[in-house]
Amino acid sequence: MELNGTSLINGKAGKRGGRTFRAVNPINGEKLEPAFHAAADSEVEEAARLAAEAFVIYGRRSGKKRGEFLRLVAQELESCGEDLVKRATLETALPAGRIQSEIGRTCNQLYLFAQLVEEGSWVEARIDHANPERKPQPKPDVRSMYVPLGPVAVFGASNFPIAFSVAGGDTASALAAGNPVLVKAHPAHPGTSEIAGAAIARAVAKAGLPAGVFSLLFDDGVEVGKQLVKHPLVKAVGFTGSHAGGRALMDLAAARPEPIPVYAEMGSINPVFILPGAMKERREQIASGLHASVTLGAGQFCTKPGVVMLADDDNAQAFAAKLGELMAGTPSSALLTAGIHAAYCSGVSSRSGQVKVLGQGSAAQSGHAAAAVVFETDATAFATDPRLGVELFGPAALLVRYSKREELMSLARGLHGHLTATLHATEQDLREYADLVRLLTTKVGRLVLNGYPTGVEVCHAMVHGGPYPATSDGRSTSVGTHAIFRFARLVCWQGFPDAALPEELQEANPLGIWRMVDGQMGK
Amino acid sequence: MELNGTSLINGKAGKRGGRTFRAVNPINGEKLEPAFHAAADSEVEEAARLAAEAFVIYGRRSGKKRGEFLRLVAQELESCGEDLVKRATLETALPAGRIQSEIGRTCNQLYLFAQLVEEGSWVEARIDHANPERKPQPKPDVRSMYVPLGPVAVFGASNFPIAFSVAGGDTASALAAGNPVLVKAHPAHPGTSEIAGAAIARAVAKAGLPAGVFSLLFDDGVEVGKQLVKHPLVKAVGFTGSHAGGRALMDLAAARPEPIPVYAEMGSINPVFILPGAMKERREQIASGLHASVTLGAGQFCTKPGVVMLADDDNAQAFAAKLGELMAGTPSSALLTAGIHAAYCSGVSSRSGQVKVLGQGSAAQSGHAAAAVVFETDATAFATDPRLGVELFGPAALLVRYSKREELMSLARGLHGHLTATLHATEQDLREYADLVRLLTTKVGRLVLNGYPTGVEVCHAMVHGGPYPATSDGRSTSVGTHAIFRFARLVCWQGFPDAALPEELQEANPLGIWRMVDGQMGK
Repeated sequence: MELNGTSLINGKAGKRGGRTFRAVNPINGEKLEPAFHAAADSEVEEAARLAAEAFVIYGRRSGKKRGEFLRLVAQELESCGEDLVKRATLETALPAGRIQSEIGRTCNQLYLFAQLVEEGSWVEARIDHANPERKPQPKPDVRSMYVPLGPVAVFGASNFPIAFSVAGGDTASALAAGNPVLVKAHPAHPGTSEIAGAAIARAVAKAGLPAGVFSLLFDDGVEVGKQLVKHPLVKAVGFTGSHAGGRALMDLAAARPEPIPVYAEMGSINPVFILPGAMKERREQIASGLHASVTLGAGQFCTKPGVVMLADDDNAQAFAAKLGELMAGTPSSALLTAGIHAAYCSGVSSRSGQVKVLGQGSAAQSGHAAAAVVFETDATAFATDPRLGVELFGPAALLVRYSKREELMSLARGLHGHLTATLHATEQDLREYADLVRLLTTKVGRLVLNGYPTGVEVCHAMVHGGPYPATSDGRSTSVGTHAIFRFARLVCWQGFPDAALPEELQEANPLGIWRMVDGQMGK
Repeated sequence: MELNGTSLINGKAGKRGGRTFRAVNPINGEKLEPAFHAAADSEVEEAARLAAEAFVIYGRRSGKKRGEFLRLVAQELESCGEDLVKRATLETALPAGRIQSEIGRTCNQLYLFAQLVEEGSWVEARIDHANPERKPQPKPDVRSMYVPLGPVAVFGASNFPIAFSVAGGDTASALAAGNPVLVKAHPAHPGTSEIAGAAIARAVAKAGLPAGVFSLLFDDGVEVGKQLVKHPLVKAVGFTGSHAGGRALMDLAAARPEPIPVYAEMGSINPVFILPGAMKERREQIASGLHASVTLGAGQFCTKPGVVMLADDDNAQAFAAKLGELMAGTPSSALLTAGIHAAYCSGVSSRSGQVKVLGQGSAAQSGHAAAAVVFETDATAFATDPRLGVELFGPAALLVRYSKREELMSLARGLHGHLTATLHATEQDLREYADLVRLLTTKVGRLVLNGYPTGVEVCHAMVHGGPYPATSDGRSTSVGTHAIFRFARLVCWQGFPDAALPEELQEANPLGIWRMVDGQMGK
């Protein structure tokens, strides 16, 4: 596919002539063709207007029709797989296999949301029948369900150029719920974004939907994003990225005349707790697994395990030595962007002055090359130096030794919100540390036992969320089918006849969905 | 019951010695004994700390135990019914029958939430089983459910001294979900608040819960409320009141280092559309019904129908004349507070200079007495003068005449978010105005057909919500069992054995709740 380098609005190529920028090959730092043109104010305005117009039609398309459309999106993405792999590997330095698996994941996610809305029960239809005889007041007939919110602005993430970007989880869940989507492409992979955006636009056309259902907007600055979040026709925001970026969007959205929800998935250090029994039984295995998890995708996962709590004993000593060796032997990897690379180098450098370096790989001398590293400190230092609790995005981890159980509990209590917490534990450890498990439940969105937090399964039960500052809204998830509720709201109809009700709420249940009728689930 | 006049913290009477205030009898403007003492900063601090400590225990009480506790709260409230009626009628000028029905409604609401959490399916347990054979990656076992958020601050509303106050919907749903509650009592009915708060505290003690599960804090200013919303241990806020008050809390919460959700149910003009067929068939009946709805509780309902859209024809003319007569014959009523009274008098006075007065009752000369009134204007004036679209809290309504269908649609399009929209329509009207119904669905939380929006049924399907500015968060409801989700968040467990999982997620489904297992609902 020939890249055009412009935004995609109303199903057509946007304007040239604005500020331009180019993607960079992280391997060698060279700029990639073509130039991409930042969207003009008038284009953002047009995209928002078209999205609001499209919402009138798309918002009331049946679940079946929306499902068909999501399947078309997946098929179009699959059909440009080779172009996507070629361009995405150039723009991100991620290996082709990883990009292929991201495409697979993204399509599976679209198919899962297609199934969800085709099946239809997700709207949580509830019916409370009337009782005209009730005293002192007759009881009315009340029926409720979830409906879409309106146009949603989605910000592509740098670290998952397919799965958390243009056609990723935010876009899939917002479209599934019935909302048009305006994507602000991440400037680190504009070519990948254009290919994915064009695939969605083709699916929109094939499904016979108004072109305003999807727009793609380029900008390497913050203006387009700000304009989107402040736009009165935009009703919600999805974002995956840095804490500073996410908080800025939250603050902008909260200050609007009409505040809107922002679902920002931000940083996390994803603490790991290796309990004494597990350390004794499986220290070698855990060291290998953890090393693979920390360095996966050059450590550029929001679920990368950044801090590891372990007892101050001989087993832990051996574990630390092993992990140090593995890190020292890790080949150099290229980070996604110059910004991430600079932040990583400076973070590693300052941390090296604060705590002990247990093992560090070497880095190539070109592009955004980075060396993997593992640090070590003790519980007191960790508890008293807030710099050590800050996410270091890239292939780095910090071991924290505690000397007694109360110190461990205190470390856990001191944690703020994270996406995940991981435990390595035997059954006996779990019994002995039940209070730790309970405490961690209040700190994260996902608890992982005897596994690794990287790798977020796309399924019904997944929670990729967690209390602030891991996300802007700890009630929700950005992965899995529950993500659809971020972009929906409740409406009820009181006293309406069948003919004027949505099918989901009609008496005979023509869609055959699960409903709560007079308090009882059934279908 | 002897009133003490102090906050209620740790199950005990709070301090005296701070600023004091007294309730006022709206009938005659006289101050009522005793004096109430504003909570000290240190008391708010203590209440928040105790709530956070209580959360550790209460947050993991089983649904059955929480249900028992909610039933105890209802029983304690019922047992002080006479005291409540006596004091609440004095403080609010609402008739005894209304207060009795509010107590009934409040207890029913507590019983409904008790049922909900005893039954247990509300947590939306989801299980996705592992598949160790899956390629390229094994599929993990993932299980999720809703858990409570933590301490919730609830602001009592002035206009429902029982049902939207100390033991009202926000408190009931927050407690049901497993959260301790800190109530800031409304200063207009402190005695009523103390009686209800003491009832809850007795239930806390009888249930053997830590006293920090519930605190009641007095203040006739804004300091205690601000301190609560800014307190790091407070995790969510429930509020029913004015737009200015709600927005101030939203802004405070959004500016916290850790922003928290605010569920503010604010003002609404609850537009009514009387379509031509219904107007022809039932104009007398609708005039009577609307008059009763506008003047119910002296018009002090957040669902009071404030604006009525009607065609400019002879039937509407006759309807308007009838409604004018009914308003002119309406007896004087006393408004809840001096502030509401002053705002109503000034609103009526300035509106009288802007639009035509169709009919106005007379007002007594004492206390907070107010006259019911109905105004009339045309669609052009309504569309161009934003002052006419502002809620006038009290027994007033505004008729808006439109001359053609497009003008009606334009009026509907121009609406911002409201709690409700009401249609009076024949079946033919519904067919002819299907586009109006669809449009209104995007503007409100509840659509009412051939009824009146006052009277919000407490049931599973109720949505008492609506897009901003009707509420701070148009995705939710503050009445009905769905309200519980405001105070809950999702957590998932990956790879845990049964013994370390909450009962809701254990393989054998020991609680017998509805769950989604591998995408299929069942129990």
